[in-house]
Amino acid sequence: MTPPANSNGQRPAIDPNNAAMLIIDHQSGLFQHVEDLNVSEARTNVTALAQVATLAKIPVITTASVPQRPNGPLIPELRQYAPHAKYVARKGEINAWDNPDLVAAIDATGRKTLIIAGLITSICVAFPSISAVHAGFTVFAVVDASGTYSKISEEFALARMVQAGVVPMDTAAVCAEIQRTWHREVALQFAEIYSAVWPVYHLLIESYQKAQDALRNHEQLDSERA
Amino acid sequence: MTPPANSNGQRPAIDPNNAAMLIIDHQSGLFQHVEDLNVSEARTNVTALAQVATLAKIPVITTASVPQRPNGPLIPELRQYAPHAKYVARKGEINAWDNPDLVAAIDATGRKTLIIAGLITSICVAFPSISAVHAGFTVFAVVDASGTYSKISEEFALARMVQAGVVPMDTAAVCAEIQRTWHREVALQFAEIYSAVWPVYHLLIESYQKAQDALRNHEQLDSERA
Amino acid sequence: MTPPANSNGQRPAIDPNNAAMLIIDHQSGLFQHVEDLNVSEARTNVTALAQVATLAKIPVITTASVPQRPNGPLIPELRQYAPHAKYVARKGEINAWDNPDLVAAIDATGRKTLIIAGLITSICVAFPSISAVHAGFTVFAVVDASGTYSKISEEFALARMVQAGVVPMDTAAVCAEIQRTWHREVALQFAEIYSAVWPVYHLLIESYQKAQDALRNHEQLDSERA
Amino acid sequence: MTPPANSNGQRPAIDPNNAAMLIIDHQSGLFQHVEDLNVSEARTNVTALAQVATLAKIPVITTASVPQRPNGPLIPELRQYAPHAKYVARKGEINAWDNPDLVAAIDATGRKTLIIAGLITSICVAFPSISAVHAGFTVFAVVDASGTYSKISEEFALARMVQAGVVPMDTAAVCAEIQRTWHREVALQFAEIYSAVWPVYHLLIESYQKAQDALRNHEQLDSERA
Amino acid sequence: MTPPANSNGQRPAIDPNNAAMLIIDHQSGLFQHVEDLNVSEARTNVTALAQVATLAKIPVITTASVPQRPNGPLIPELRQYAPHAKYVARKGEINAWDNPDLVAAIDATGRKTLIIAGLITSICVAFPSISAVHAGFTVFAVVDASGTYSKISEEFALARMVQAGVVPMDTAAVCAEIQRTWHREVALQFAEIYSAVWPVYHLLIESYQKAQDALRNHEQLDSERA
Amino acid sequence: MTPPANSNGQRPAIDPNNAAMLIIDHQSGLFQHVEDLNVSEARTNVTALAQVATLAKIPVITTASVPQRPNGPLIPELRQYAPHAKYVARKGEINAWDNPDLVAAIDATGRKTLIIAGLITSICVAFPSISAVHAGFTVFAVVDASGTYSKISEEFALARMVQAGVVPMDTAAVCAEIQRTWHREVALQFAEIYSAVWPVYHLLIESYQKAQDALRNHEQLDSERA
Amino acid sequence: MTPPANSNGQRPAIDPNNAAMLIIDHQSGLFQHVEDLNVSEARTNVTALAQVATLAKIPVITTASVPQRPNGPLIPELRQYAPHAKYVARKGEINAWDNPDLVAAIDATGRKTLIIAGLITSICVAFPSISAVHAGFTVFAVVDASGTYSKISEEFALARMVQAGVVPMDTAAVCAEIQRTWHREVALQFAEIYSAVWPVYHLLIESYQKAQDALRNHEQLDSERA
Amino acid sequence: MTPPANSNGQRPAIDPNNAAMLIIDHQSGLFQHVEDLNVSEARTNVTALAQVATLAKIPVITTASVPQRPNGPLIPELRQYAPHAKYVARKGEINAWDNPDLVAAIDATGRKTLIIAGLITSICVAFPSISAVHAGFTVFAVVDASGTYSKISEEFALARMVQAGVVPMDTAAVCAEIQRTWHREVALQFAEIYSAVWPVYHLLIESYQKAQDALRNHEQLDSERA
Repeated sequence: MTPPANSNGQRPAIDPNNAAMLIIDHQSGLFQHVEDLNVSEARTNVTALAQVATLAKIPVITTASVPQRPNGPLIPELRQYAPHAKYVARKGEINAWDNPDLVAAIDATGRKTLIIAGLITSICVAFPSISAVHAGFTVFAVVDASGTYSKISEEFALARMVQAGVVPMDTAAVCAEIQRTWHREVALQFAEIYSAVWPVYHLLIESYQKAQDALRNHEQLDSERA
Repeated sequence: MTPPANSNGQRPAIDPNNAAMLIIDHQSGLFQHVEDLNVSEARTNVTALAQVATLAKIPVITTASVPQRPNGPLIPELRQYAPHAKYVARKGEINAWDNPDLVAAIDATGRKTLIIAGLITSICVAFPSISAVHAGFTVFAVVDASGTYSKISEEFALARMVQAGVVPMDTAAVCAEIQRTWHREVALQFAEIYSAVWPVYHLLIESYQKAQDALRNHEQLDSERA
Repeated sequence: MTPPANSNGQRPAIDPNNAAMLIIDHQSGLFQHVEDLNVSEARTNVTALAQVATLAKIPVITTASVPQRPNGPLIPELRQYAPHAKYVARKGEINAWDNPDLVAAIDATGRKTLIIAGLITSICVAFPSISAVHAGFTVFAVVDASGTYSKISEEFALARMVQAGVVPMDTAAVCAEIQRTWHREVALQFAEIYSAVWPVYHLLIESYQKAQDALRNHEQLDSERA
Repeated sequence: MTPPANSNGQRPAIDPNNAAMLIIDHQSGLFQHVEDLNVSEARTNVTALAQVATLAKIPVITTASVPQRPNGPLIPELRQYAPHAKYVARKGEINAWDNPDLVAAIDATGRKTLIIAGLITSICVAFPSISAVHAGFTVFAVVDASGTYSKISEEFALARMVQAGVVPMDTAAVCAEIQRTWHREVALQFAEIYSAVWPVYHLLIESYQKAQDALRNHEQLDSERA
Repeated sequence: MTPPANSNGQRPAIDPNNAAMLIIDHQSGLFQHVEDLNVSEARTNVTALAQVATLAKIPVITTASVPQRPNGPLIPELRQYAPHAKYVARKGEINAWDNPDLVAAIDATGRKTLIIAGLITSICVAFPSISAVHAGFTVFAVVDASGTYSKISEEFALARMVQAGVVPMDTAAVCAEIQRTWHREVALQFAEIYSAVWPVYHLLIESYQKAQDALRNHEQLDSERA
Repeated sequence: MTPPANSNGQRPAIDPNNAAMLIIDHQSGLFQHVEDLNVSEARTNVTALAQVATLAKIPVITTASVPQRPNGPLIPELRQYAPHAKYVARKGEINAWDNPDLVAAIDATGRKTLIIAGLITSICVAFPSISAVHAGFTVFAVVDASGTYSKISEEFALARMVQAGVVPMDTAAVCAEIQRTWHREVALQFAEIYSAVWPVYHLLIESYQKAQDALRNHEQLDSERA
Repeated sequence: MTPPANSNGQRPAIDPNNAAMLIIDHQSGLFQHVEDLNVSEARTNVTALAQVATLAKIPVITTASVPQRPNGPLIPELRQYAPHAKYVARKGEINAWDNPDLVAAIDATGRKTLIIAGLITSICVAFPSISAVHAGFTVFAVVDASGTYSKISEEFALARMVQAGVVPMDTAAVCAEIQRTWHREVALQFAEIYSAVWPVYHLLIESYQKAQDALRNHEQLDSERA
Repeated sequence: MTPPANSNGQRPAIDPNNAAMLIIDHQSGLFQHVEDLNVSEARTNVTALAQVATLAKIPVITTASVPQRPNGPLIPELRQYAPHAKYVARKGEINAWDNPDLVAAIDATGRKTLIIAGLITSICVAFPSISAVHAGFTVFAVVDASGTYSKISEEFALARMVQAGVVPMDTAAVCAEIQRTWHREVALQFAEIYSAVWPVYHLLIESYQKAQDALRNHEQLDSERA
């Protein structure tokens, strides 16, 4: 059976060497609309995407919707953690794919797989994702690095995108599918990214190190002190 | 890969020039059944649809289920904000598509894309949407301008409609897909509609204007007064 | 586009003249496992299905899983409201479709569409529904007249069934798709069924009648008494 | 330490021989506002209170808020299951305690403990409960036979009432505190009331009887048939 | 027993003739923090308070926290619906009660009961409410016309305020306790306020009127047309 | 200030040397009603109480409500883990405190502090807890080793008990307040009890031991193998 | 119509004689990330899978992700209840399917159907499941014996897997589809497994046995004692 | 009326000049148990407390429960942001107040008000808070800089602490009550702390600055470009 997603018969997974990342409208004002997940998590997650793209040398394109107006500026982490990102100013188009400069910038990367995150999911992610599938791209939508105004909106944006052949993913899965193996040089940097996305992972590392230090240093138990 | 929705190989998105809107059974009694979202939001959202249709000159057809009985009258906002809407009285048919006058009214618009909202989702939206897909229309069901009696009912109505080729959307995405760009004359009217659908957007605009006024008027900070 | 559900190119909706109903394992012990919806609602809803089947002269087949053991007896409402139902005793098969007597009973009805409800959804509904689709039937699974042991179980049972071509529905939608129109003789009996499934509908009718009585009887307002 | 509730140093529990029941504004329209619990449960529970009052010969007073207007009629179960209830028509007072006829009716019972349920909790229960405590009564507010428009409203109404010395209870606890023992004649009637309030109890009884019947009748297990 | 709230032995209820209203920091930016209830409801509810104060001639004092900075301006509805409100500019004090002008403005009203709403509940409501109780006032905190950054924050702010003798209320209860009776001239204006706070009430009125119109006008049922 | 709970001026904490434990109606049928927490957790938690009582030599009294009828038998873990428990058969009394044998059994222990858990919280815990406070005992109610039929029921049972001077606790806090220190012989047995109550604690211990073993055994990382 | 899942035209159900089980990364540290279901349930459920595999003689392969580091050791229940399981050490590959030894171990079983559970669902289950479908296997993903870091992550992992042709199931359904009938020798062992997965089933059995014992032993009711 | 909390007739609010802070058992392993709030938020919030203490020169005492064992090390942020904190090693006592060194350290500060946060709330916060009240201190428990293993546990720990006279607060309220006014030198540092506790506040500041920059720099709107 052929999987119904837009992978042209390939395993429907991210090939980091053929992928570009598209980060859309992560602006301070639009973040205020996010109700389907924790605002702080959404911000942390899109920052992780920027970091992973840098680590894996994946081209990044950013864009914003009228940042001079109430939607506000892009969050500065994008530039900070993906300094190689190319910013494309739109001329008012809501669907980023309707902006020819943006499509040209994607084409210039030569990549045929897109990793897309954006605010608001049902608009800024769904519209260009569906457009890109229709234009022949393999598209992965990163839902918890995006966000929308209600749980219902999220559920139905998911359904619409999947119906159109977009592949849904979460941030950690994107990082892991790009990383592929712990048997590589930058494994530690990936671990740091997971520590931000998963606060529990950070705690695990701290516990692990203390458990080994306690043994290594022959620490006396507090409860066994005189 | 061909997206599985009912778009006949076109990008599965709303073309405002080929769309008609169908608003079904938004009656005061039926609103009382809505449990999958806030009653007030459902009412605000369907009102936004009426406004957007007027703004984009999209034909609207309204209908009701025995308004002389406990289901009650259509909410007056529909007539108020879409004065061009055509009302079709049904003769008891539960599936609006079973009423020949309603199908004739749709055919008279010459449009082949339908934007449908209704109460109750699993009945008044699902039945005609599935029928319309079967009859060859491209159908967008607007779930948060509709409503149903339980979260389970909503989830399964979504699944049934998507399985049948109906495209699910939320109200804001419908507005944005019709608007297309901020670079147009009625952009401000669209912004006002978003302010109603998204109370947060209203607050953002108020904050934005105050921030600029504070600078423009050289207002002294309260906290720095003598 | 052909809808992907199991409708052989027909509108994927219930045709009451070609439908049989299969009610599986609604036993007192198994009801205790229901956690994805209110036990009381599940019991009311499957009772409504029995009533609608009787009203619309739809054949009903019931079955139970070892009722002599802790699973307990079928609830008596099934016999009470669908006295024409045929009970098939299984010989231990978990998937009711594995019992040849049950399949024979279905075949004897001559119907090719099945409306299925059962406890537990992911087992007693999913197994025979998927089997019946594979055997060429058009199958509608009634999820809120069924029930399962967790929300996750429900969500994944839905996904599995939809993937296999089963059509998901809620109880009220089944009733309405069978009823078709208020312009028929037994409309009032249908209204009574909705009043049980939807307590709000009951209240609406009571409010409606009082509003008309107040006018008809020229009742004085309490707040305007001397 | 003296418990802070309004029990004058007595064990703060219902004494059925000194209690009267006050059922306020359970009208079809007001039921539509109930969002903190299932409408159906609220209706079942207040009906159970009426039944228990009849069983235990507790005087009942009912009242309604302008039933000729959109609030609608009292639900008929109150009269049906507590035919001895006395109805007091108010003259527009929102706080039932502000109506002298109602206070007189309570005084006429000679009881000093009140069991109060009503719609809407934060208004129709809280106002008279607090007034009654202030007037020297011991007051039990039955929250799941009442209901209000949001979870927040419920939480804060609880806090306000407890702060004022009202004792909060649920329906089943009221029934049980009135019943006192299974070692009495009408025990079976109490069990029937619990079966309505707790659908699970109904199922338990059915399972229990079948388990004994299976043994008594030497039923063969389905799974062990030839 | 004496109720533990701050009512000095009086019935702990609002006396509209002795009450002043204090509306604190309902600013566009601070509204963005509200997570314990729907932002739109919080805005609607504080607007209702302003309307009720005007209707009942209750003095209103408003104040804001550095509106020239990111907290933003007070929402304009306050001035619109309570034009008699007195605005007190604070000089940076977080606890409004620490501002002598504000306390002086309250004292100038001669009222000893305060109805307080504010953003953020745990700070802008809790601090001055507790201070006012300590200063001898009877204080009612209106929680759903306020709002805070998490459900936990709300629950613990409630606990702290109740512990300190503040009386918690919801918006509808405040309106009703001020209104007292439907047997008064401005009853209709109160009904309009409830229609905003309770969208369901609006629907009930629409259903009621239609039910009477259908009878009055001898409307034919749609389902009985030829 | 004197804390308002029933501690007679002592620190309101469990003194294991003055405490008896009362475990009421943990019967297989009544467990089916538990909806405010996970049934499995409630069963695990009351078992932990039995274990802790044994470990700390605290007298235990168990009782059941008509176990020959649908309420079913006490769970066997109680006898298994607290073999020293004394079972008191009631004669139909719903409030266990109304049974003189049970009160006598408590008096026979000479303890003046009671740790109480039971099914259903609002009845089987609340009634005897309030009675015991009234009789002069210091009472701790263990809510997550109990359970009731709805979240509302739990919230209001809590409010009623606290109002009456009962001290609410969770299972882990009871264990810890009895344990007092890790610097004692049976510390390891306490750790095992926490591992059951807190599955996370079990995982922590497993991680900790593996972290030390990996160091101790100089295990090679899988990711660094050739 | 052909069901879209990966069943090659067969009924998309588990054939126990053609199935192998793959249990991935159930390590003490990774369990701490599980937020979409109860950690305890996830652990119980994967243990049930191990037991069922042993009972039905299904080959099992286990693997872990760098257990010498903070992810921690595999839980010991896997070895305890599936002693025939083969452990494959990975060399750092995140997608288990990228490890040639693991694929070889699967091929060595000769089975073409895989039952997969793992931590974290969106990574450790989704990656190998999608890879296996692409490699021609029929794959069943057991979601409640897996777990992931948020509800959103779970929902989108489900969508991605279903889109790729993976069949989602819950633990109980897997057990039941493998068991097939109660009319077999090891039926009792299956019942014990359900008792662990479903605590309610355990209670039902206890109630059932007591109900029969009460009759068999002519037990006197407590409530009817003198 | 005297508020019932432990304030000895003073306004029950934090006096920063009389307060010490007690941070208990924020260890990497114990954080894994936190289920009543987001782990990340709990960690951020206790870090904010450390920062505020430093800013306001409030003495801090930290302690841990056997950090050499699975509970793990204190998070390093405490030392980082409150370098003046004094660490007290306990000798196994679960209730920190049972450790004489810790009480001595508190006494050495000369402060009579305690701000307490800890893991687990129902144990590590509740036990010493109640002990401290009993010892005559005024105690504020900071619940969202603490955390416990279930929502029920949190609710009942709150009830127990309030009953005993502990004052509950959230992190932001503690910061604000210590800050008192924006009209002070370190106001900006407080704003930075709020930005961490409230991610929305961070976004507001970014939006505000961009709104003013757009005006100041006469930026052209994207949507109005040629």
